[in-house]
Amino acid sequence: MKYRTDMAEELHGSNKKACEKSGGIESSLYSEDGVRISRIRVVSKEGEEAIGKPQGTYVTLSVGEDWPSDGTQVLSLSRMIAKNLRPLLPPEGEILVAGLGNRFITPDSLGPAVADKIIVTRHLMGEPFFSGFRSVCAINAGVLGCTGVETAEIIKGVCSRVKPAAVIAIDSLASLSTDRLCRSFQISDTGIVPGAGAYNARRALDRQTLGVPVIALGVPTVVDAETIVSDALKTAGADGRPRISSGLLVTPKDIDALIQKSAKALSYGINMAIHGDMSVSDIEQFLG
Amino acid sequence: MKYRTDMAEELHGSNKKACEKSGGIESSLYSEDGVRISRIRVVSKEGEEAIGKPQGTYVTLSVGEDWPSDGTQVLSLSRMIAKNLRPLLPPEGEILVAGLGNRFITPDSLGPAVADKIIVTRHLMGEPFFSGFRSVCAINAGVLGCTGVETAEIIKGVCSRVKPAAVIAIDSLASLSTDRLCRSFQISDTGIVPGAGAYNARRALDRQTLGVPVIALGVPTVVDAETIVSDALKTAGADGRPRISSGLLVTPKDIDALIQKSAKALSYGINMAIHGDMSVSDIEQFLG
Amino acid sequence: MKYRTDMAEELHGSNKKACEKSGGIESSLYSEDGVRISRIRVVSKEGEEAIGKPQGTYVTLSVGEDWPSDGTQVLSLSRMIAKNLRPLLPPEGEILVAGLGNRFITPDSLGPAVADKIIVTRHLMGEPFFSGFRSVCAINAGVLGCTGVETAEIIKGVCSRVKPAAVIAIDSLASLSTDRLCRSFQISDTGIVPGAGAYNARRALDRQTLGVPVIALGVPTVVDAETIVSDALKTAGADGRPRISSGLLVTPKDIDALIQKSAKALSYGINMAIHGDMSVSDIEQFLG
Amino acid sequence: MKYRTDMAEELHGSNKKACEKSGGIESSLYSEDGVRISRIRVVSKEGEEAIGKPQGTYVTLSVGEDWPSDGTQVLSLSRMIAKNLRPLLPPEGEILVAGLGNRFITPDSLGPAVADKIIVTRHLMGEPFFSGFRSVCAINAGVLGCTGVETAEIIKGVCSRVKPAAVIAIDSLASLSTDRLCRSFQISDTGIVPGAGAYNARRALDRQTLGVPVIALGVPTVVDAETIVSDALKTAGADGRPRISSGLLVTPKDIDALIQKSAKALSYGINMAIHGDMSVSDIEQFLG
Repeated sequence: MKYRTDMAEELHGSNKKACEKSGGIESSLYSEDGVRISRIRVVSKEGEEAIGKPQGTYVTLSVGEDWPSDGTQVLSLSRMIAKNLRPLLPPEGEILVAGLGNRFITPDSLGPAVADKIIVTRHLMGEPFFSGFRSVCAINAGVLGCTGVETAEIIKGVCSRVKPAAVIAIDSLASLSTDRLCRSFQISDTGIVPGAGAYNARRALDRQTLGVPVIALGVPTVVDAETIVSDALKTAGADGRPRISSGLLVTPKDIDALIQKSAKALSYGINMAIHGDMSVSDIEQFLG
Repeated sequence: MKYRTDMAEELHGSNKKACEKSGGIESSLYSEDGVRISRIRVVSKEGEEAIGKPQGTYVTLSVGEDWPSDGTQVLSLSRMIAKNLRPLLPPEGEILVAGLGNRFITPDSLGPAVADKIIVTRHLMGEPFFSGFRSVCAINAGVLGCTGVETAEIIKGVCSRVKPAAVIAIDSLASLSTDRLCRSFQISDTGIVPGAGAYNARRALDRQTLGVPVIALGVPTVVDAETIVSDALKTAGADGRPRISSGLLVTPKDIDALIQKSAKALSYGINMAIHGDMSVSDIEQFLG
Repeated sequence: MKYRTDMAEELHGSNKKACEKSGGIESSLYSEDGVRISRIRVVSKEGEEAIGKPQGTYVTLSVGEDWPSDGTQVLSLSRMIAKNLRPLLPPEGEILVAGLGNRFITPDSLGPAVADKIIVTRHLMGEPFFSGFRSVCAINAGVLGCTGVETAEIIKGVCSRVKPAAVIAIDSLASLSTDRLCRSFQISDTGIVPGAGAYNARRALDRQTLGVPVIALGVPTVVDAETIVSDALKTAGADGRPRISSGLLVTPKDIDALIQKSAKALSYGINMAIHGDMSVSDIEQFLG
Repeated sequence: MKYRTDMAEELHGSNKKACEKSGGIESSLYSEDGVRISRIRVVSKEGEEAIGKPQGTYVTLSVGEDWPSDGTQVLSLSRMIAKNLRPLLPPEGEILVAGLGNRFITPDSLGPAVADKIIVTRHLMGEPFFSGFRSVCAINAGVLGCTGVETAEIIKGVCSRVKPAAVIAIDSLASLSTDRLCRSFQISDTGIVPGAGAYNARRALDRQTLGVPVIALGVPTVVDAETIVSDALKTAGADGRPRISSGLLVTPKDIDALIQKSAKALSYGINMAIHGDMSVSDIEQFLG
């Protein structure tokens, strides 16, 4: 019985033996400035099968329970996100940032919240003031239930006009552990399947479908109620799959505020990865 | 081991023997127009102790799983809320409607959402057009964490100026069952303890503290993760209290939309109970 | 000296002689159910130059001052919008509804508010329940300042994937008269230049650029302060262009509520034009 | 013919002779760190009549056109607000911050936006961590049209429970000049009449009605269309009062963003005046 997660670090943890045996997974775990950093590389077909994620690199930055209450830690985390994101971007060319998810459903609103905070410059590239900036554009791709169109189709369409060198896609993720909610930041170069964690998988956003590298950034905002219940049963030594309605999510009470906080850290990190190191005050100034 | 609920019907169900033995609880359960109606009267000190709720009447209207997708059912439910609320109101005098809870925390936003949709008339009572209306005012009392003041203090202060004949207080509730989320409507004449369900009990809003009848209306919007897990353990025959961080809530994915829907039903019902039967179109017109 | 307006009826009114002389403009004006209906057809190159609008049909429905306070009038207006919109749609094929404008700038938020209320069905066309519906999808195209991409480019990209039979584009308009704010509804088959009224014209959305018919729906939400001042000077017999900073807009105090109201009328109208006559309750039910 | 303004500096400017003659007005104007500071003291009954404002001190801080785009200037302005506000507060005792205005009407939303950003501590005064803080509470008083109760009544009621040493009331103001919109910050120790600028004067919030000092903070967010038109007529040498519907406001296009920006400056300033100098990062941390 497998439960829903989008986190490579969790999949690695719960399939450790298979991953080792496959010989196709490299992993490391260390700490830097109070942030726990997990790096997992899936390097072969066998590794893919063992971990259940496509080949590529997955970096996860995790912070402790009290991080959201400390302003300076947001900036230090943003810098670490920038540092880990920058090497995955092509050295030059347009970047398209795509926010995935539904602005009006709290645990699904991370993508739009981040895309709203990207310093877009594509239409300003001629202006001398912006000569030090990289060309960036950003869209909120909407969700199938509101647009009637697969997210991947919308982004493909926009790519056909904008012709970016890379796409950065931001999405809310599912996790196995409530300890990770709004506190883990996963960066990968493997693209993303929108809504994958939510069991309503749509066509993938990756190099194969979009023709350019797709860097996926995500933060877990939900744990399935089923996961929690199953864990409790396992711990109690009880058998059987939990009987609980599907579609129920476990969230902390202050999820609205936590999502704003992690969207801030993520958007600062992306802006710094693309445009170079900046102060928070400078970033906020550009966003008006 | 008791889990958190604000629903009299649930407390009655889980303490059935004690309730019967106390001789202080009267209850009935029936259906009307597809709505399940539970009526519980706590009539003695012994009844209070058995059920864990103060003396008075608790009416709970519950609808089925698919109700939110049917527009006409909202109106029919609103009429039933009005019918059950009306007898609890004093025959004349000012009504103060108080929305409890935090507008910016989704599962706590029911009170403000309802208070925003009340047709207030207190300042218009001299105008001939409003001669058929009852005098009503409405406030959003805020929450302690945002105001620094107990909700009960704010409402007491406003009552000292407005001198209402009764207060209607609206709050989000906790339930033991995810089946009830945004689908049960509890009406009681016993007042309310803001945040009681959330284990951060503040001073009560009731006839004793406010000096006038306090009618409480509530809809469950959260189930504690602890409750869910404990249920699963019990079902599996496992022992022990669940080990899970407190402060975690279980909600359906579409909680944002469901709260809007139940706020609509509740506000329509309150408006009709106070001002007399009206069409939805008339209500919406007054709300601008 | 010409002031900013997107309304064909106003351009016709202020260029009456030239329009008549051109022989390229047909116009009529009548009333129906309390709604004033203006129809203007621009039929030749000479007509285009005289009125300053491309060839095609412009229907403007205008309601009186008190309309927003009357619920039934919203429905009757929506029916009239549907009746005038339906003949402009191709008999079959996918419809793409595109909301133009910025959700976070009140007078520019009409397009997103309408697009949010479209019953999208493209992804549900296989389901028996939706057999009576037409295939529709909807996007919020964003604005250049937030995306870095011309609105026309985004819509072209989406059209290249969705291949609609027609596009319906919704935008906030500029008017010469504060009497029209949120009370005139312009429907035309000529496409639209996003932000044209705002002097920041972008590439056009029309049959030529998108390859399919583009029906434009708009409601005036702003009057330039320059227009108001110039009118006053003219009336007073004073000469000279007004000296007033550009970028200042005149709006009624309750613009937030009025935009919601006109977005409702417009979205109901579009849904009924596409999917057939429906009750408001049915429409609201589908929008969840 | 007088037009609507809440700004003492403007009333002084347009009644200069009468003010001088009255002998009851002291005024000074100077610059500090790029901020223009006007100080006006109304010291006698004659002064009151000449300027049309009650006796007391009015300090107005005004910044230049480009201020909103510069992050550090927000902080420097906040510090200056704090410096001018601090001497008006009583040396000890509870402070009640009251946001006036309607959260859902953009140009009236300044008060709620500021009250949302106050670090409230009244309920935390026992905790050692907060030993360095002053006791503060905050409410959003709502508006008559939504509550049915005069704002002054609500605040009086809350004061009767909270018993503050002083009230700080924040409101949107009207100005005669579009150059001041979201760029002037008026601080006075004379209290406020909610909605005064809007011609719907309600009972005053001042020392006489509340029994404690009332410090009023305000930022102009609207200019009446009538004012603009009248100015243009005067400049053109034309006679007569402008014929224009009342209730029309002139605002910059980006009013939504500008109000957020000025609410930030104002709330930072209030927090620093009350709790002592703090970094923006510390303030944001406390607001979660």
